[in-house]
Formats: sequence, structure tokens, C-alpha cells
Amino acid sequence: MPAVHIQSHVYLIGAGPGDPDLLTVKALRLIETADVVVYDRLVSQPILNLVSPGAELIDVGKAPDHHPFPQPNINSLLVSLSHRFSKIVRLKGGDPYVFGRGSEEAEVLRDAGVAYTVVPGITSAQGIASTTGVPLTHRGLATGVRLVTGHCRAGHDLDLDWDGLADPDTTLVVYMGRGHAAEIARRLISGGLSADMPVMLVVDGTRPSEERHFTTLAGLGATAATIDKRRPTLMVIGRVVELADELAIPLEAELGRVGHG
Amino acid sequence: MPAVHIQSHVYLIGAGPGDPDLLTVKALRLIETADVVVYDRLVSQPILNLVSPGAELIDVGKAPDHHPFPQPNINSLLVSLSHRFSKIVRLKGGDPYVFGRGSEEAEVLRDAGVAYTVVPGITSAQGIASTTGVPLTHRGLATGVRLVTGHCRAGHDLDLDWDGLADPDTTLVVYMGRGHAAEIARRLISGGLSADMPVMLVVDGTRPSEERHFTTLAGLGATAATIDKRRPTLMVIGRVVELADELAIPLEAELGRVGHG
Ligand SMILES: C[S@@+](CC[C@H](N)C(=O)[O-])C[C@H]1O[C@@H](n2cnc3c(N)ncnc32)[C@H](O)[C@@H]1O
Ligand SMILES: C[S@@+](CC[C@H](N)C(=O)[O-])C[C@H]1O[C@@H](n2cnc3c(N)ncnc32)[C@H](O)[C@@H]1O
Repeated sequence: MPAVHIQSHVYLIGAGPGDPDLLTVKALRLIETADVVVYDRLVSQPILNLVSPGAELIDVGKAPDHHPFPQPNINSLLVSLSHRFSKIVRLKGGDPYVFGRGSEEAEVLRDAGVAYTVVPGITSAQGIASTTGVPLTHRGLATGVRLVTGHCRAGHDLDLDWDGLADPDTTLVVYMGRGHAAEIARRLISGGLSADMPVMLVVDGTRPSEERHFTTLAGLGATAATIDKRRPTLMVIGRVVELADELAIPLEAELGRVGHG
Repeated sequence: MPAVHIQSHVYLIGAGPGDPDLLTVKALRLIETADVVVYDRLVSQPILNLVSPGAELIDVGKAPDHHPFPQPNINSLLVSLSHRFSKIVRLKGGDPYVFGRGSEEAEVLRDAGVAYTVVPGITSAQGIASTTGVPLTHRGLATGVRLVTGHCRAGHDLDLDWDGLADPDTTLVVYMGRGHAAEIARRLISGGLSADMPVMLVVDGTRPSEERHFTTLAGLGATAATIDKRRPTLMVIGRVVELADELAIPLEAELGRVGHG
């Protein structure tokens, strides 16, 4: 095995939900100065444009229904890049430690003796809360927030604690749930949530193409079925959805200003 | 009532857990160019140092056990500042929509006809996940994460759904829970969690003074009792705590580099 590059360091970085203005200062600096950037499908083009022209860009993203670039291959790619480059950026949508598999990559790097640092990112739930005015917690409406995944391996059931999830005092945010929306709604209703519980679906959150759909648990399946499965979609279920700000500042007025200081 | 300043705009900004490098690019730009900054106790000094010397700084922070600056006063302060200033920054620790009362301030501004924008911030749970290596989700250990508050009004019981919270497959992060740590542990154990469930307490997360305490539910009360109540403390309960990275990059090597390119 070749020796690890003496100075090599991998940065597992959360790129946030898409708006480059929502990168952290630390992430921006590392992206601009990386030698190589390994990125996922959910990292937006305006963020990739910040990578230095001299750096190598490696796409390990996978569209739904396409042959995935398997996680073990990504893991070994990161280790092998550490033999050739000194500043390696591994860029993920949102936060690397929220449904991002960042900790699996961290474990592999640790075991291989490669130095690494994790840089958190705005998770998509936070991004869409800020653009829609729907808070994750709010006195009297939600004493807490729960982030779950609605994804499961092909042929497997959604293995979640449905009765615990059906809590009207908690905001429930479902990542990767569009495909199972009807089933999620059905189970939450049988767990005890009202069929009238408000639901918001946000597609392409914080991006110029952001779209919002307002419905209830009863209408969730039908609404979700209208959404293109290639576009990232987040479901927010709970009474906080009533606070959605129809007067929210249009995104166009806010977007695309990195570096315009 | 005086007319709203024609150009006035309030920015409800999450300052993150303390490390200025974890500000978003948008937050940094707004902080540097604000006319007035209204800030909470949890906004760190290195972040306040980024405010322009010409700007007015207003502290509405409250230490625990001190007479609080009541929320309604903060709300009316923001509205009245909009008559005098054009760029008003309201700076909160972490994310304004995660136990930050940001949505209460947003409602008041909306009702008063004051334009505002919400800027999300890294919530403290994300900050400490990145410094300690304890992910919020991890395949096989946590299918989701739940953020709750352990705070309650004086004389009231902690009114949480304990059986739902006692889920070994979910990472539970308790904000403002230090004072009720023994009770939280007791209720989670009677709800069905093992007394051996690992717990991490992080004090001053992402700051040079960050401290970590590792214990179990059985030891949580005693460990929490050793922590100074003036210091912000987060509790992480769940199997992901086993992944804590004892080799994590020392904070000193990572902190304090805003603007050092
Ligand atoms: C593999 S998970 C990664 C989550 C990411 N680590 C985070 O913290 O946001 C991918 C899912 O995140 C959600 N998501 C990510 N970015 C989004 C966006 N801009 N708008 C809506 N949903 C988004 C969608 O549910 C998507 O299926
Ligand atoms: C009123 S809540 C505000 C939470 C904030 N909006 C956020 O998103 O992190 C205050 C609590 O957040 C937690 N907290 C905030 N900053 C922290 C830090 N740097 N380290 C540990 N805990 C922190 C503590 O539990 C503290 O009591």
C-alpha cells in the first residue's frame, strides 16, 4: 500500500441545500482552495462553480433509478486520492451527518490513517424553513422536530416506529419520502394523526426553481405523485405548516450573491 | 405610529454554535454591513467582533436565573428599530427556527408590515456532531434524529411524550436539558431505553473551551450536575455516541480563521 500523502487531509463538507449563500464560511474557503473535489448529485451547480479551475472535479452522484456509484467505491476513492492530493474536499448536499453517510466515510478514513475534518452544512430542512417561513419548532405548535428518512431498500418495508412518529406536538420532516408518501400518510393517520394535519412539500428548496405544495395528510399521496422524482423533495408534516409565509421574500431577490459582499 | 422606514429590512440570522467559521456566507455579509445588531447571550464574542465599528450593538441576552429581557420587548424593539435603521440584524445562537423563537419575531414583523428575511444557521447539534465525530444519523445505529427541549416553565412538569422518545433507533438531542438531566434519564429508562445507553454532553460546542463528557443514561444525572449552568450544554443520547472520534482534530487547529482565506 502506498504511503499516505504526508500532508493530505480530507474535508467532509456539507454544501447546504443549494443556495451558495448558505455555505458556511469554512466550506467556501475550502471549496475555493481544494486540489480535488468529490461531489454528490445534490450539490448545486452554482456551488461547483466556486471550485478553482485548476482543481480536479469528480462526480460520484447518482440519479434515482440509475446505477449507483457504490458507497464502498467512494470510500476507497477518498483513501486513494489521499496518496495523490493534499487538500481533498468531499462535498455533500445539506449536512454530512444528516442522512449523508458522512460518518461511514469518516470511519474508513480513520481506519486508513487519513486525517479528516467534518464541516457541517445547513440541512435541507433548515433551508426550506427559512425560505417558506415554516419554523421547525414554535411555542404552542411544536415542542421539537424529528428528521426521518422515508427511503428503504428495494423490497423492504418502511421500518419506522409509526405510533411514536404520530405525535401532533412534533414537527416531522421526511427526507427521501416522496416515493412512499401515500404509505407514510396512511400509517401516520392510523397511528393517530388527524387526516387534516397540514403538510408542505418543498421541491428544490433554496434554489431558483424552488416549489412549494401545501396539502394535508389526506391529500399527501396525490400531491406527491405529481412531483418529478428526479427533483429533491422534502416533506414537512405538522401544525407549524400553518405559519407558512405567503409574503416570503421572493427567492430571486435573495439568491446568487456569493462574493458580492 | 411612525411610518416604517421605507428601506428597512430585518434579517433574522442564525449565528451557529459559536465558531465564526460556521457562519453562513450570507450571515457574515449581513453582519459586516448591518446598521444595528440585536443579539442574544449565545452569540459568541468572535462573531460580535465582525460587526462594523460604526454599527449599534444591542444586547438582549439573558443569563439563566437573571431577569430576562422579555420576548414581547424584543419584538417591539425590532419594530421600533425599523423606523430608524435600514439594515437591522437580529442575531441568534444556532438556527433561528430551532428553539430560537425566530418565528415569533417573524410573526410580529409581518403583522407590523416590516420586511424581513430569515437566514438559517448551523444548529448546535450539527456543530457538535462535526467536532466530536458523533453523527446525527448513521446506517444501522440511527434511522433518524430528534431535537427536543428539556426546558420547561418554572413549576411545570416536563411535558414530553416519553414513550415515543425512548426509541433506541433514533438519536435524541436535548437542548436546554442540563437542569433536568436526572429526570430525563429516569423517564427514558422507564420508557424502555437501556440504562447503558451512551450519552454525550457537550459544553461550549465548537468554541475553544469545548468540553465533552461521556456517560450513560444511568450516569447522566451525576455527570450533568458537575456542569456550570451558565455554559450552553447539549445532550446527545443514542448509539451513535459510540462513534465519537477520540482522534478528532484538536479545535485549536481549526478555529478562528474567518477571513484568513
Ligand atoms: C441522501 S438525503 C441527503 C440529505 C442531506 N444530507 C441534508 O442534510 O439535507 C437526500 C434527500 O434530502 C432532501 N433534500 C436535499 N436537498 C434538498 C433540497 N434542496 N430541497 C428539498 N429537499 C432536499 C430530499 O429529501 C432528498 O431526497
Ligand atoms: C434557546 S436554545 C437555542 C438553540 C439554538 N437556536 C440552536 O439552534 O442551537 C439554547 C440551547 O442550545 C444549546 N446550545 C446552543 N449553543 C450551544 C453550544 N455552542 N454548545 C452546546 N450547546 C449549545 C444549549 O442546550 C442551550 O441551552
